[in-house]
Amino acid sequence: MRRSAEFLRQAALDAGFTVAEVWETAGHPAVFAERIEDPLLPTVLVYGHHDVQPVDPVEEWEKAPFEALERDGLLLGRGTADDKGHLVMHLEALRGFLQARGRLPINLKLIAEGEEEDGSEHFQALLVEHRDRLQADVGVISDTGMPAENVPALTVALRGLAYWELRIEAASTDLHSGVYGGTVLNPITVLAQMLAELHDGHGRVAVPGFYDDVQELSAAERREMAAIPFDEAGFAAEGGAVLGGEAGYSTMERRTVRPTMEICGIWGGYQGEGSKTVIPARAAAKLSSRLVPNQDADRVTSLVGAYLRQIAPPGVRVEFLTISTGRWVLTPSRHPAVGAAAEILAEVWGEETRFIREGGSIPPVVAIAEELGVPCVLLGVGLPGDHIHAPNERVVLAQLFRGMQAVGRLWERYGELGKAGLSGPPETGVPAPPT
Amino acid sequence: MRRSAEFLRQAALDAGFTVAEVWETAGHPAVFAERIEDPLLPTVLVYGHHDVQPVDPVEEWEKAPFEALERDGLLLGRGTADDKGHLVMHLEALRGFLQARGRLPINLKLIAEGEEEDGSEHFQALLVEHRDRLQADVGVISDTGMPAENVPALTVALRGLAYWELRIEAASTDLHSGVYGGTVLNPITVLAQMLAELHDGHGRVAVPGFYDDVQELSAAERREMAAIPFDEAGFAAEGGAVLGGEAGYSTMERRTVRPTMEICGIWGGYQGEGSKTVIPARAAAKLSSRLVPNQDADRVTSLVGAYLRQIAPPGVRVEFLTISTGRWVLTPSRHPAVGAAAEILAEVWGEETRFIREGGSIPPVVAIAEELGVPCVLLGVGLPGDHIHAPNERVVLAQLFRGMQAVGRLWERYGELGKAGLSGPPETGVPAPPT
Repeated sequence: MRRSAEFLRQAALDAGFTVAEVWETAGHPAVFAERIEDPLLPTVLVYGHHDVQPVDPVEEWEKAPFEALERDGLLLGRGTADDKGHLVMHLEALRGFLQARGRLPINLKLIAEGEEEDGSEHFQALLVEHRDRLQADVGVISDTGMPAENVPALTVALRGLAYWELRIEAASTDLHSGVYGGTVLNPITVLAQMLAELHDGHGRVAVPGFYDDVQELSAAERREMAAIPFDEAGFAAEGGAVLGGEAGYSTMERRTVRPTMEICGIWGGYQGEGSKTVIPARAAAKLSSRLVPNQDADRVTSLVGAYLRQIAPPGVRVEFLTISTGRWVLTPSRHPAVGAAAEILAEVWGEETRFIREGGSIPPVVAIAEELGVPCVLLGVGLPGDHIHAPNERVVLAQLFRGMQAVGRLWERYGELGKAGLSGPPETGVPAPPT
Repeated sequence: MRRSAEFLRQAALDAGFTVAEVWETAGHPAVFAERIEDPLLPTVLVYGHHDVQPVDPVEEWEKAPFEALERDGLLLGRGTADDKGHLVMHLEALRGFLQARGRLPINLKLIAEGEEEDGSEHFQALLVEHRDRLQADVGVISDTGMPAENVPALTVALRGLAYWELRIEAASTDLHSGVYGGTVLNPITVLAQMLAELHDGHGRVAVPGFYDDVQELSAAERREMAAIPFDEAGFAAEGGAVLGGEAGYSTMERRTVRPTMEICGIWGGYQGEGSKTVIPARAAAKLSSRLVPNQDADRVTSLVGAYLRQIAPPGVRVEFLTISTGRWVLTPSRHPAVGAAAEILAEVWGEETRFIREGGSIPPVVAIAEELGVPCVLLGVGLPGDHIHAPNERVVLAQLFRGMQAVGRLWERYGELGKAGLSGPPETGVPAPPT
């Protein structure tokens, strides 16, 4: 992480930022860069992150995860899409703009954090500490995607996240399955039974109260969502996955406006070659829920924890730990900064820009919007097939190149709008379709 | 394993065997030793194993697993009970006997295999290859235990074992839980739901046909079993475990005459610190069943495999692999070789010898009984609290010392009985209580 931060700091200076600094946090370092042209011009704060997900299972990569592989218009490597690729998009847009015009029509700031994949634990504190230097008129968050290469889109909603670890202990030591088999509670069996009770037979989360605060879409909103081009079969085929989920909702709804309960990891007992005839003392799982308006992560955590403790067999020790939480986001879709971005994407891609909801979570968006009080534009060029968080993560280079063009044009437009034109108060609530 | 075999070979010569050899197999090496006094004397073949279970989780050991720790009348270390301790018992019994008398009243052979904990994969082939050298009148298998220190016992039944690996694949690559969460089948969730369906609400195995061939005890046999001293609370407390299991049966019945279905290991997705928001491509578990008369491991494997494939959701890839199987055993409890052993244990321990069933599996007992056609006496001094297969495995030294005395006296008694007295045909079927 330190090498990554130093690299990015230097790359920012090389691209045309006049100041670039590594900012320490209580965790991994962030990188800040800025180029102030004139205090009277509007200031844009770009957000991205330079940390990435773990690379395991490393044996499934076509090439070493940190050695880029270019083929067929793709660039493969950890972070090419999520999110180093987006940082490169901004650096190259700046370099190109300066080469063509010599100066920017705006003031540009960049904050690249180093803990987004870990739940942005220290990002809020970083914003508070450096509030003055991060002041801006608009935030541009580049860590999202589009439904397809020919469907330019701006994200106007992100799901929140609660990530937990569930630990089951049923014995103080591993036990021999011959001596104890059949006579004591097996923590893996207990864990499996508890996890099986997280969903009902219709794919709905079975935790009482889980859906209480979920905002249902109106019939009109459901129609609008259904009209967004979405290659459902391709979406599943891309991951070799089997479609499934909550009965009564489309795949697009399931991935954007419905909350989820996923098991992200599980372990216990013997995992090696051959056999070990053991009943382990402990088993555990990583659980996560994607949250939607108006769910509250703390309330959901309480509900899930209470449910798990309630369904655990008596005598078994249950630990339920919160690892991280992040709020869902609805951006002010009618704000002029968002409108300008929508127009520019339409120009560059040659298609109408869609306002979409994303299934993922970007907790720092909440922090930037609330702590700095700026409207946020979620401008990203990822695609559903980018394999982010997985082996062989890739970015479609054409998307990256169009993104660089769009960023340059957007700075131009923001310069034309000026501070006054970008000062509309952020609208809250459910975003409406473009007017 | 090689160092262990070489060590044991030398230790056997030091103790008084006149021949000791390392025997190669297609897997780990075995050790054979013999001391032939006179072809007219009866020959005893002692069986033990010099391999041990993996030591993980190694951080839970009081001392390094292969550095013996003596305290409070115990000897801690991997293999002290299962099964190197029993090999030492036989070597020291031989050394002591020879020091006192100069020669044995029997011919003694020892076979110590190196793959018992791996399912004795190559043991049958070893018996076939060396059948002539292994010929004996009686087999003495020392890899079992007693209910308590003051309850001398001979094992007359062992459960069989089938050990499987279940692999679930629901995607071709790991997927991002934000992008795909809620829309595709999660293999960990699928696995948990399938494992939860292995038992019904009464702790019974839910696989159709699983109990078809299980021999139920008669009311008289259940009463006899209930009369064997068994500290149920201590048994559970020893492992810090929570008693549970099949409704309608006692803990002693559950661990000896009832078949089981245990999950010995499970893994999938992210298991590290913090969070990784992933829906993994795959998840897997190690399953094992302890089998009882008259269950057949192949038939049970077919039933379990068919059931798992049937309950798997469509589209999910299911692999069900057999790792090892071992038959259950009933020994001829009225055979004179067994009767003599029972009398001698009663003399040494000063209490009536019980005939017990054990929950564990020792596949080589089946091989020795069937391949060499000898009656087998299961003479072991382990105790329920030995933590075999677990951290801090230990043996009670007093048990080991009494075991050495008993072995010496048993050789004496077998010498008195002579070949003729030990030649009763092995009785088959359910063992009766001592008469």
